[in-house]
Amino acid sequence: MPNLDTNTALPATPQDSPGSVGIVVPQTVHFDTPLPLLCGKTLPEYDLIYETYGELNPNKSNAILVCHALSGNHHAAGRHAADDKRAGWWDACIGPGKVIDTNQFHIVSINNIGGCHGSTGPKSNNPDTGKPYGPDFPIVTAKDWVETQVRLADVLGIDQWAAVIGGSLGGMQALQWSIDHPERLRHAVVIAAAPVLSAQNIAFNEIARKAILSDPEFHGGHYYEKQSFPKTGLILARMLGHITYLSDEAMRDKFGRELREGKLKFDYNVEFQVESYLNYQGVQFSENFDANSYLLMTRALDYFDPAADYNSDLSAAVARAQCRFMLMSFTTDWRFAPARSQEIVDALIQAGKNVSYAEIDCPQGHDSFLLDIPQYTDLFRAYMDGIAQELSQ
Amino acid sequence: MPNLDTNTALPATPQDSPGSVGIVVPQTVHFDTPLPLLCGKTLPEYDLIYETYGELNPNKSNAILVCHALSGNHHAAGRHAADDKRAGWWDACIGPGKVIDTNQFHIVSINNIGGCHGSTGPKSNNPDTGKPYGPDFPIVTAKDWVETQVRLADVLGIDQWAAVIGGSLGGMQALQWSIDHPERLRHAVVIAAAPVLSAQNIAFNEIARKAILSDPEFHGGHYYEKQSFPKTGLILARMLGHITYLSDEAMRDKFGRELREGKLKFDYNVEFQVESYLNYQGVQFSENFDANSYLLMTRALDYFDPAADYNSDLSAAVARAQCRFMLMSFTTDWRFAPARSQEIVDALIQAGKNVSYAEIDCPQGHDSFLLDIPQYTDLFRAYMDGIAQELSQ
Repeated sequence: MPNLDTNTALPATPQDSPGSVGIVVPQTVHFDTPLPLLCGKTLPEYDLIYETYGELNPNKSNAILVCHALSGNHHAAGRHAADDKRAGWWDACIGPGKVIDTNQFHIVSINNIGGCHGSTGPKSNNPDTGKPYGPDFPIVTAKDWVETQVRLADVLGIDQWAAVIGGSLGGMQALQWSIDHPERLRHAVVIAAAPVLSAQNIAFNEIARKAILSDPEFHGGHYYEKQSFPKTGLILARMLGHITYLSDEAMRDKFGRELREGKLKFDYNVEFQVESYLNYQGVQFSENFDANSYLLMTRALDYFDPAADYNSDLSAAVARAQCRFMLMSFTTDWRFAPARSQEIVDALIQAGKNVSYAEIDCPQGHDSFLLDIPQYTDLFRAYMDGIAQELSQ
Repeated sequence: MPNLDTNTALPATPQDSPGSVGIVVPQTVHFDTPLPLLCGKTLPEYDLIYETYGELNPNKSNAILVCHALSGNHHAAGRHAADDKRAGWWDACIGPGKVIDTNQFHIVSINNIGGCHGSTGPKSNNPDTGKPYGPDFPIVTAKDWVETQVRLADVLGIDQWAAVIGGSLGGMQALQWSIDHPERLRHAVVIAAAPVLSAQNIAFNEIARKAILSDPEFHGGHYYEKQSFPKTGLILARMLGHITYLSDEAMRDKFGRELREGKLKFDYNVEFQVESYLNYQGVQFSENFDANSYLLMTRALDYFDPAADYNSDLSAAVARAQCRFMLMSFTTDWRFAPARSQEIVDALIQAGKNVSYAEIDCPQGHDSFLLDIPQYTDLFRAYMDGIAQELSQ
């Protein structure tokens, strides 16, 4: 039986900045019912950490599940303390009056298992050994995450989500929800996603993993006990990932060939601003993310394949869906290009589903889904307004 | 004064396979006139290794210089021994009856300084210390390479190349030739190149370098003396480079999501064919290339900027050119996309130069320039035929 821990969410207060949910406090639920996983292993017990924003209405019909992408977590909006330098990762879109409006919806944002920000993952203690799981933590997938999210919904008494929403790997979870638990969501909002990774996507992930696995500080994943950390490998992995999050155009606009110190030095230290930026991003990330979790998240992407049980026929897979769909993609996203969203749209149409699709013309690349880009948020807001209107009908 | 060493080229014989130049023997020239470099340092002396294919005509008007790309070398065509498994890197295009026809032209193919296949580079002995240069080898650029190639032309008695030809970084050298020594070439063939690297291009190079520089076996570049080699870093660097040489489409066609062993194993070992392929490519490369040279070649790319002395105005730079230009790009090349070739074409047109340009529609990506793709080689051959016809006029 799951147990809610003693943390309780403070009411969302807009004291932080206009449109902010204010200070938020995460909550944790412990699940002691074993979770069978796609990989064949079973997780005997686990914690899920999550945050909520906005009030749940009396009939519990206004709940929205936000699923995070590769490096995200449960902290999607607001701040944990008044002096936090950064707000949650989707603060641009979640808050009172924002696209996902906390005046209308009760938003649940979860940290997936396998992560490193509070839900059970590789750095958590393995109950069998009393030591961190490390490489013994089983590889989990989007399908497994959906099952944990179903269990959380059960604990929260949410029979049906008004919507399941996510960008990138988050969008993939929304798609998986629509197939695996069709009766438990009314809308799926799938942003900047793909029906399955391409060979190029997998190739990038493989190099990122290899950078971590080959770092001498990795110690086969058992670095926790060695007071060690594969920082260099994780920095490399993140730098590589980061290139794929930005468009060529966005990088050119932001950095061009600008030099860091005004003139060339002709060495292998940082010469160009883009090198400095990427290095900074890599270092920052390495201080806030666990290398074993990064390995796991990239594999979860590789393994995402909602049509696998349907003879690789996505239209057969989504034939099960009962919800309405909203898909969005971004013209300059070369990680999951619009053509990949179009593949999902085509499958949905073939299966006779109700789907809206917008390809947003903007220069920011894959990361667009995180940003307040009017062409994007206007459409997103219109769709969310439609969901809100259904609540009052 | 340069000295030709005792190696002499065997006559090209088509005994290997139809269209092959047969067995070739590299030659080396030693230069003892110091070479001032763009970086401000001077290389006191150096060797250049090169190969030739086809006969030089009596008035020496049919000589073609082939410049290599990042990981290329002087061995562009034929084989060094009858049992060589692989022919030179551009054997698809160089040979009797081929696009660059050895029945018509005398082709000179050089290994650039800074490389690791015979010309002086980081693994060569520093005459000041008697030990390998390692990280003390100065960073050379395309502009410096052109100067070494001019000196070689002088030694060979070639006053004017019929054409200077190259793909990728090789094409950049051809462009640099047209600006720095306009009277010494009649044609420049610039394939799959760019006028300057984009921020994204530099970002990829930076990650590749960081993988090498952070490998514990790198020892600050002094690994030769330690009987060590940053193999892991170089493998990572090459795997990353390799992704950018292939189009997403080509990778999808070649590998898709095919599994290596037929079923998922759910671990971090190789699962997908594309992982296996990339790892293999990385390992092969690491056994045939020097890590310090790889660092240097990527920096040569970063620093390539033929408009630098012309207030960043490429049309002002190419205004000096006297040759005709042929540019080719490939629709699915995302490393140096057609738009980058178009920038060069625009500058040439603005400067009133004679330029032909073809954007080839093919799925293979950046590496297309190395391949025998009919849409490409037919156009390339037609242009080369025009050059051959000029010889008889």
